[in-house]
Amino acid sequence: MPQNKAWTVASLPTGPLSESNFKLVESASPSPKDGEVLVKNLWLSLDPYMRGRLSQAKSYVKGVGIGEVMTGETAGEVLESKHPGFRTGDKVCAPSGWQLFCCLQGELLTKVDDSRVPLSYYLGCLGMPGRTAYFGMKDICQPKPGETLVVSAASGAVGSVVGQLAKAWGARAVGIAGGKAKCDYVTGELGFDACVDYKLGNLRRDLREACPKGIDCYFENVGGAILDTVLAMMNLKSRVAVCGLISDYNATEPYGVKMFRSILVNRVRVQGLIVFDWLERYPEGNKALQELAAAGKLKTRESVLEGIEQAPRGLVGLLKGENFGKQLVKLA
Amino acid sequence: MPQNKAWTVASLPTGPLSESNFKLVESASPSPKDGEVLVKNLWLSLDPYMRGRLSQAKSYVKGVGIGEVMTGETAGEVLESKHPGFRTGDKVCAPSGWQLFCCLQGELLTKVDDSRVPLSYYLGCLGMPGRTAYFGMKDICQPKPGETLVVSAASGAVGSVVGQLAKAWGARAVGIAGGKAKCDYVTGELGFDACVDYKLGNLRRDLREACPKGIDCYFENVGGAILDTVLAMMNLKSRVAVCGLISDYNATEPYGVKMFRSILVNRVRVQGLIVFDWLERYPEGNKALQELAAAGKLKTRESVLEGIEQAPRGLVGLLKGENFGKQLVKLA
Repeated sequence: MPQNKAWTVASLPTGPLSESNFKLVESASPSPKDGEVLVKNLWLSLDPYMRGRLSQAKSYVKGVGIGEVMTGETAGEVLESKHPGFRTGDKVCAPSGWQLFCCLQGELLTKVDDSRVPLSYYLGCLGMPGRTAYFGMKDICQPKPGETLVVSAASGAVGSVVGQLAKAWGARAVGIAGGKAKCDYVTGELGFDACVDYKLGNLRRDLREACPKGIDCYFENVGGAILDTVLAMMNLKSRVAVCGLISDYNATEPYGVKMFRSILVNRVRVQGLIVFDWLERYPEGNKALQELAAAGKLKTRESVLEGIEQAPRGLVGLLKGENFGKQLVKLA
Repeated sequence: MPQNKAWTVASLPTGPLSESNFKLVESASPSPKDGEVLVKNLWLSLDPYMRGRLSQAKSYVKGVGIGEVMTGETAGEVLESKHPGFRTGDKVCAPSGWQLFCCLQGELLTKVDDSRVPLSYYLGCLGMPGRTAYFGMKDICQPKPGETLVVSAASGAVGSVVGQLAKAWGARAVGIAGGKAKCDYVTGELGFDACVDYKLGNLRRDLREACPKGIDCYFENVGGAILDTVLAMMNLKSRVAVCGLISDYNATEPYGVKMFRSILVNRVRVQGLIVFDWLERYPEGNKALQELAAAGKLKTRESVLEGIEQAPRGLVGLLKGENFGKQLVKLA
């Protein structure tokens, strides 16, 4: 059997995450027990929520303990199955954590079809980030045709799907992203109507120009000063989905939101969003995303690091916005 | 005809409101034209929203201009009617502004029945503040039996109704108020389960003690540090109605809300509330409040200043929390 490699948590960060918060551990590959499946992971997904697992602060899921394998989703191939639902060679998504091999109860795996789309898409636009975008848009933002939707981190795994859904549903899509390359991609490739580069330092002015009728829906991935700028422009009875606040994740002191009053004045509805609240409706989300992809209306971009050794560096960079598109680690 | 007295706006405050922002003007009483009704105002309502009318900042209604009569609702008696729907002696509520007499189109008046409750109640628990509480509770907070509701400014015109509705609907009602007298009134008279005195300086600890199962519904009238303390204690899928942020109204710089992340982590739904969004459902709200009052379950307390001369002082004090219960000015 090949050797397993796993990233464990060495220490919890106070302030910015560092590569030294993780430790690479080698061990023999595990063997499946009855009901279990041995998976060889081919792709590891890196996502902003992971920063929240490295904290003792109250969050929606318990944090990862020191010495435990770091949390993460993978896409891989079944090497050996002791579960009737899986066969050697099946492609699956799995909550494996940051490691090359894992044994999991078959019930925890999701079989996926990579005959028409790359396997890695099931960690991005057709996976958790895609479903996050779909349910946040469908149930919280609820854009109507002609309305203006703004999404931050617009070139990212979630944001890119959000804007493409807005377009598919007849709304105007305006992105916020950092740097010309990302903004060009958001308008040129993804088909958003506009994209504002917050790094130019004129977010308020540029966003007003991009949203002459104000903002009806905001899909928030970032928080901080961007949130305040957008809140000030929300229209009457507009909707905000709070999906992420990445600008706060590495901060020791949270940002103070000054435009809370806009929620009152404009009767805005603001709602927090964690995709697993929609677990029972995943099939609906998967179907909608797959149909959009089949129609050529769900484009995506991946940022790939080679080798499990790169995972900590990848997450540290993701939290600084250094990725461009869905951040993945190619494991094999 | 008697002489009219009216408070006009002399200047817009920057920072705390002052009595010198108003100017008392005397003039002849107006005479009704066709379709109009001459009302003698008996009670003037003072409400926190009035501070927002004295600002050029964007709000849900245009501000009052310099030299114009200050905005306000009154309850009074018809002196002369040139509208078929009203007769001399009818009791009405009217958007008169801060003055002793006014002529208004009949369509702007609401006839009320003061045979069983005092006329002034139609400016408080049976009027705009009561309806604000009702629709915010019914449509936004949506307390279920056994859930915990918290309301700030709990002894005030809106807060006192909010908590009594929570009790009537089977929820646990916890108030936040300033000072022992107000807290004793909230639990002793209004029947809340608990009331925390924020002026004691231990809000976080005391609120945790009063809400051992966390907070399912929050009805916000105050904002600032109180909002942050409550946000940190919101339960999963809890609801916040943002009705007022009085602690910010006199501030030159808005408070920075640090616990915004709780909205994400706990999937809280936060919604701004202005009662006139429910205009078409006022009859439903009025009926519910009147039934509650008839059942002896809608207690109220009024803070009465005598004479129109006192109105500016009353509003300045209200914004500092100096009132105790619904703030009124007795005009005649």
